[in-house]
Amino acid sequence: MALTIDIERLKQDFFELSEIGKNPEDRGLYRTAFSEADMQGREWLREKLDACGLQVRTDGAANVFGRLPCEEDSAKTILVGSHLDTVPCAGALDGSLGVLVALECLRTLKDEEAAESYARHLELVAFSDEEGRFGGMFGSQAVVGAVTPETLEYYSDLEGCTLAEAMTRCGMNPLDALDARLGPETIDSYLELHIEQGPVLDRLKKSVGIVENITGLFKWLIKIRGTANHAGTTPMEMREDAFMGLADFAHEIPRILEENGAESSRATIGRAQILPGAPNTVPGLVELTIDVRDTSKAVLEDLGQAFHRALSAIARRRKLMFDYEIQSVIEPTQCHEEIIDVLEAEAKELELDYLKMPSGAAHDAQIMAQLTRIGMIFVPSREGKSHSPAEWTAWSDIEAGANLALRALDRMARSTEK
Amino acid sequence: MALTIDIERLKQDFFELSEIGKNPEDRGLYRTAFSEADMQGREWLREKLDACGLQVRTDGAANVFGRLPCEEDSAKTILVGSHLDTVPCAGALDGSLGVLVALECLRTLKDEEAAESYARHLELVAFSDEEGRFGGMFGSQAVVGAVTPETLEYYSDLEGCTLAEAMTRCGMNPLDALDARLGPETIDSYLELHIEQGPVLDRLKKSVGIVENITGLFKWLIKIRGTANHAGTTPMEMREDAFMGLADFAHEIPRILEENGAESSRATIGRAQILPGAPNTVPGLVELTIDVRDTSKAVLEDLGQAFHRALSAIARRRKLMFDYEIQSVIEPTQCHEEIIDVLEAEAKELELDYLKMPSGAAHDAQIMAQLTRIGMIFVPSREGKSHSPAEWTAWSDIEAGANLALRALDRMARSTEK
Repeated sequence: MALTIDIERLKQDFFELSEIGKNPEDRGLYRTAFSEADMQGREWLREKLDACGLQVRTDGAANVFGRLPCEEDSAKTILVGSHLDTVPCAGALDGSLGVLVALECLRTLKDEEAAESYARHLELVAFSDEEGRFGGMFGSQAVVGAVTPETLEYYSDLEGCTLAEAMTRCGMNPLDALDARLGPETIDSYLELHIEQGPVLDRLKKSVGIVENITGLFKWLIKIRGTANHAGTTPMEMREDAFMGLADFAHEIPRILEENGAESSRATIGRAQILPGAPNTVPGLVELTIDVRDTSKAVLEDLGQAFHRALSAIARRRKLMFDYEIQSVIEPTQCHEEIIDVLEAEAKELELDYLKMPSGAAHDAQIMAQLTRIGMIFVPSREGKSHSPAEWTAWSDIEAGANLALRALDRMARSTEK
Repeated sequence: MALTIDIERLKQDFFELSEIGKNPEDRGLYRTAFSEADMQGREWLREKLDACGLQVRTDGAANVFGRLPCEEDSAKTILVGSHLDTVPCAGALDGSLGVLVALECLRTLKDEEAAESYARHLELVAFSDEEGRFGGMFGSQAVVGAVTPETLEYYSDLEGCTLAEAMTRCGMNPLDALDARLGPETIDSYLELHIEQGPVLDRLKKSVGIVENITGLFKWLIKIRGTANHAGTTPMEMREDAFMGLADFAHEIPRILEENGAESSRATIGRAQILPGAPNTVPGLVELTIDVRDTSKAVLEDLGQAFHRALSAIARRRKLMFDYEIQSVIEPTQCHEEIIDVLEAEAKELELDYLKMPSGAAHDAQIMAQLTRIGMIFVPSREGKSHSPAEWTAWSDIEAGANLALRALDRMARSTEK
């Protein structure tokens, strides 16, 4: 009989976990990193892992591991997981689903005694603070060795509590996070299942997505300066209207994406402040952000140059000045060809209606790519909704994604290649 | 010898008045209505008017008058003036110059004993709260009979002090403002000299402007609703981006002004709030104001319809929703043909390089048009600056404008027409 997960068991875990940190008033989850609810969630997971006979440990960054060892002690480890922490007022799937699916897969494989024939250890991982109460991706950064003592003191939450303080309050020694690093030579790969958090699979009625790459991005804070003037006394042709510069710039986005971008390119003006902001005053200053994403580093560079040229041209034409500061740059990450191939082969065997696609959002997998080969499975987000109690995925799609993860893990663990 | 004002005497008045309410730190004037400095300014004016033998009175709205009567008691009155109150951190010319020029004109005519041959009384008026610590145009509204007991309780300043309270603190009985109304049958006309507060005369190197009409306006608060979504996971073609709706709308402004507007049309998006306002979130809601002005009521109506159609088309195209509320409507006001003709004839005689032009800003003259014939003279604002200590006009232009006012008043006062 073919290897399959037990969807009813997975549902039961899901309903248990989604009570931890739930606010009955807004039905949202509040398991922000290192909160009481987050620590309860981790404890719940430890008990579950222990109950099904996996080897449980927690590292110095509060990452929880559950290991299904193969018989060869010196074998490499395939990690599979995601994160348990949430944004405030979250849905129950973002992160949690990947951890629950990993749990269900390892439990199934354990019950099947599959590991007897494996050449790889399998290990669940639930990373800490993916969502960024303190900077984000803390657990995976600790695992790849990117955390320093400064990280622990530098990052603080909106109330000014530092990461180190929060960890101390949880009974941890923050400096233990520096010991969480895993040796690249011990790790075979990292697989993560996650909700898409976008509308593509839902609109196309696909059950699963096989992620090919995770977009990189750059974010600029742009200032466009003109001259504030009276809206009544200043003729249109004598204006140096900073807001009209912004409008021009917004209108260049579709052209620039068509000329310099690719299908996966995105550009968003998400924030803009118009100053002085009086209805009867021609705006003299606009501050805006542009968030530009693509899966190709070369495309991102082209887009950056094109946006810069557009700003220059607009400033000349409208007698404005501009400058910008680069607020962040994240390089695109490729999922590993071999893992994509495994996922695609298994999806075909399972006769799943899958889509190969980019990830527009950032994930722990992006960090893990610094350490090892990565792969990602997406399941649909109904109406693209995420970071909201309205977040949902059909059970049938969850089952399809979980079975794909299970079969891929089984195949990867048997493999002696690489 | 030709009738001329004494520019040195006018300068001296100017320097005296511009010390009252001056903040030495920012060099701005703080003579907001019914402040101590404002009352000092009024007292200074009363003393000046008294010293040159004009008949001084203050009405129940704190408007200060200085009368140069002609010999016929029953003759109508030509009012000439502006306002003494300022915005916070103001320049020394906005309003004050019109009052000082009126003072200088009446003083000159008094010295010349010109009134002996006049068929009209001449009377200086310095209106209260033109700038709007409490709503604005209070003094002129009182004179035309537009103030009600509700006005006095309804308007309050940014600290929550009502107009009635402020007047009481100045030792006045607020209800006396209801007695400030002047009978239309007693008034011949109202003439106001004011700085342009825009860049037109300065750029064209004209000494004076003869105002043909004062623009009307409508101001809408527009909400454009889309769907907030993740900037990374939402493909460009699946977005309902409220900000891009705003950018489209901004881009329709030049077309709409060209197609439906006139030379005097202005349209300004001065305020826009983008929500939720996160760099990595596609905006779901935009709130903006549009301030649209023209000197023709029919053009304003056309523009309103065109902006409405543009919003509808953009909303359809981008799958957005919109609504707007009308925040204010002010009808355009025509200066009187006869007064424009007098000003133009005198400007030609004085060989002034003048421009017939609209006023883009609102003035007491707009209110006074409800009562009588109005005329306005503009003098240039250096670089169009106003409501700022940088406000300035060359003495030579002030002298030209003052002599034009003087000659026009003399001609109008002699006239027995109408």
